Amino acid sequence: MSEQDGMSYAPLGRPRPVCGPGDFVFAAVGLDHDHIYGMCNGLLEAGGTLKWVYDPDPAKVAAFVGRYPLAVPADAEATVLDDPEVVLVAGASVPADRAGLGLRVLRHAKHYFVDKPPLTSFDQLAAVRAEVAETGKKYAVYYSERLHVESAVFAGQLIADGAIGRVIQVLGMGPHRLNAPRRPGWFWERERYGGILCDIGSHQLEQVLFYGGSDRGKVSSSRVGNFAHKDHPGMEDWGDVSVVLDNGAVGYCRVDWFTPSGLGSWGDGRTFILGTEGTIELRKYLDVGRDPEGDQVYLVDNDGEHHLSVHGKVGYPYFGQLILDCLEGSEEAMTQEHALAAAQLSLEAEANAIRIED
Amino acid sequence: MSEQDGMSYAPLGRPRPVCGPGDFVFAAVGLDHDHIYGMCNGLLEAGGTLKWVYDPDPAKVAAFVGRYPLAVPADAEATVLDDPEVVLVAGASVPADRAGLGLRVLRHAKHYFVDKPPLTSFDQLAAVRAEVAETGKKYAVYYSERLHVESAVFAGQLIADGAIGRVIQVLGMGPHRLNAPRRPGWFWERERYGGILCDIGSHQLEQVLFYGGSDRGKVSSSRVGNFAHKDHPGMEDWGDVSVVLDNGAVGYCRVDWFTPSGLGSWGDGRTFILGTEGTIELRKYLDVGRDPEGDQVYLVDNDGEHHLSVHGKVGYPYFGQLILDCLEGSEEAMTQEHALAAAQLSLEAEANAIRIED
Repeated sequence: MSEQDGMSYAPLGRPRPVCGPGDFVFAAVGLDHDHIYGMCNGLLEAGGTLKWVYDPDPAKVAAFVGRYPLAVPADAEATVLDDPEVVLVAGASVPADRAGLGLRVLRHAKHYFVDKPPLTSFDQLAAVRAEVAETGKKYAVYYSERLHVESAVFAGQLIADGAIGRVIQVLGMGPHRLNAPRRPGWFWERERYGGILCDIGSHQLEQVLFYGGSDRGKVSSSRVGNFAHKDHPGMEDWGDVSVVLDNGAVGYCRVDWFTPSGLGSWGDGRTFILGTEGTIELRKYLDVGRDPEGDQVYLVDNDGEHHLSVHGKVGYPYFGQLILDCLEGSEEAMTQEHALAAAQLSLEAEANAIRIED
Repeated sequence: MSEQDGMSYAPLGRPRPVCGPGDFVFAAVGLDHDHIYGMCNGLLEAGGTLKWVYDPDPAKVAAFVGRYPLAVPADAEATVLDDPEVVLVAGASVPADRAGLGLRVLRHAKHYFVDKPPLTSFDQLAAVRAEVAETGKKYAVYYSERLHVESAVFAGQLIADGAIGRVIQVLGMGPHRLNAPRRPGWFWERERYGGILCDIGSHQLEQVLFYGGSDRGKVSSSRVGNFAHKDHPGMEDWGDVSVVLDNGAVGYCRVDWFTPSGLGSWGDGRTFILGTEGTIELRKYLDVGRDPEGDQVYLVDNDGEHHLSVHGKVGYPYFGQLILDCLEGSEEAMTQEHALAAAQLSLEAEANAIRIED
């Protein structure tokens, strides 16, 4: 596995523990997406203690233990859920199965930290909202394309500091490398991965809500297509969505599976934020044709053009905040409403999408 | 006037005459938009002979003659239209008046070369189509953001050469500097400039049709807003539009009047073209934070990332082709159908736009 293909994109940051060993015990359950490694890295660097790992597939467990030798393979999911020491379960199962696991986790009085997309249907969304309200536990979501990207974290700070005035539009492009031969069966089944706008689109819509400054949004239009993978009828290899937030900020997102093999990264992810007093462009994973290092920020304001290379300089505050939120009942990392609002908007985009006929 | 503000953006290229002096006599009528200078530069470099200039405002005529001393001020529009030597009239009057002038030009058996937007209403569009059919004369449109931008011309060549496979999506951003104090009254009146999607949006939609490879498109959704200029109720300072072409290619365009004063150009115009086998990004007017020179092309294909600086290396073939089209009855520069299809799509986008309430 290499970071090149993005399937195992798992950033490593500097350890900044917010608690001592054993203060925050967590487990990994459901290893279908390699995002689980990014999730565990983040929690470990922030001081979490990884106790258990469980997946029905022994090969996935073996690979995981190879990376985290202190994780103990559990014989069953119940072993993890019944352990009173476990505060949080991190999971990256097949998207359609994520809510099911999450509901079980919450019912066992534990917090859940789930890979995006956190769920794939409106029924799941309603059940999750009900269970969160009932248990008071967190259903936190790993929107890695903001939380685990230093330039994306930095952009949030710039906006909060008023660097570009009021945000008018967030425009995101999230291309991904396909790596077809390495993809599991569920990757091609729309009901299992949830559709492209529900899946990788959720990263983008989360950013629109976050940078746009509201958790209430409405889809203006959305579209999906299968332009080049008709041998997989369940595939959506392209999608886009336009949204408007209740504060008037607008968003547009485009996602696709067409990263050319010549690109030195798994995707040329970009975010353009238009403000009344300036603009921000993020070149997240590389500066194409210029620099293989990502986290390149281009801020233009009324004083000039500013190119800021922030890789290694910002860190990933989300994970420490999440641990403290779980331990202290706060909501600093991300509000529950925000995490699920992005999921809801993604579901609405997917459900109402125009299907491009070509 | 400086090129910095884009109001007088008038590229100069190398002279590549396609005809001799006097072979192609043209006139300039209607000087409300400084695009007239780019239009005349292009025709002059391609061998055209500028005979007349007319505008009801003597100050505009004086400025024009200062730039082109051989142009003779006409005492009236009719003097130009009645001159049998004149083959083509170039015009950049107020957008809402452009079709009226064009109809008079065509009825005098001359070709018309009009600044974008070429017209501002469906009635005008129908009248123009009828007059073109009746007279056989051209109603050519100066979509400068492709025709007079070398990287944009180059992108067309790359696509034609199959460099990125089949085009899936054209995504364009056309930010413009406002320069409010220098804008004339009509700039703020929606009925006069036609709305943002009709006006600067037409540049973008023309590119979607051109790179996307079809003249038939349908608006999926469009939106306009007035985020920061509410003292001008007729102003639309932001707009976007999603289209799908009948061949399945999709487009998205965003235009706005929010170029920050610190940007070293009138706008950070970008075009992203997604293909099945590669991607093209154009940084048209500068490479923000990197290089003040524009026409930077980033091509990524299955072999690698390619950064191509094409400024001064491509030229502007449109103008010579237009002259020959007029002289020889060909359609190499741009088909009439294409020029008006872009205008029609722009009108449809504007007419059906969601108005953002903020």
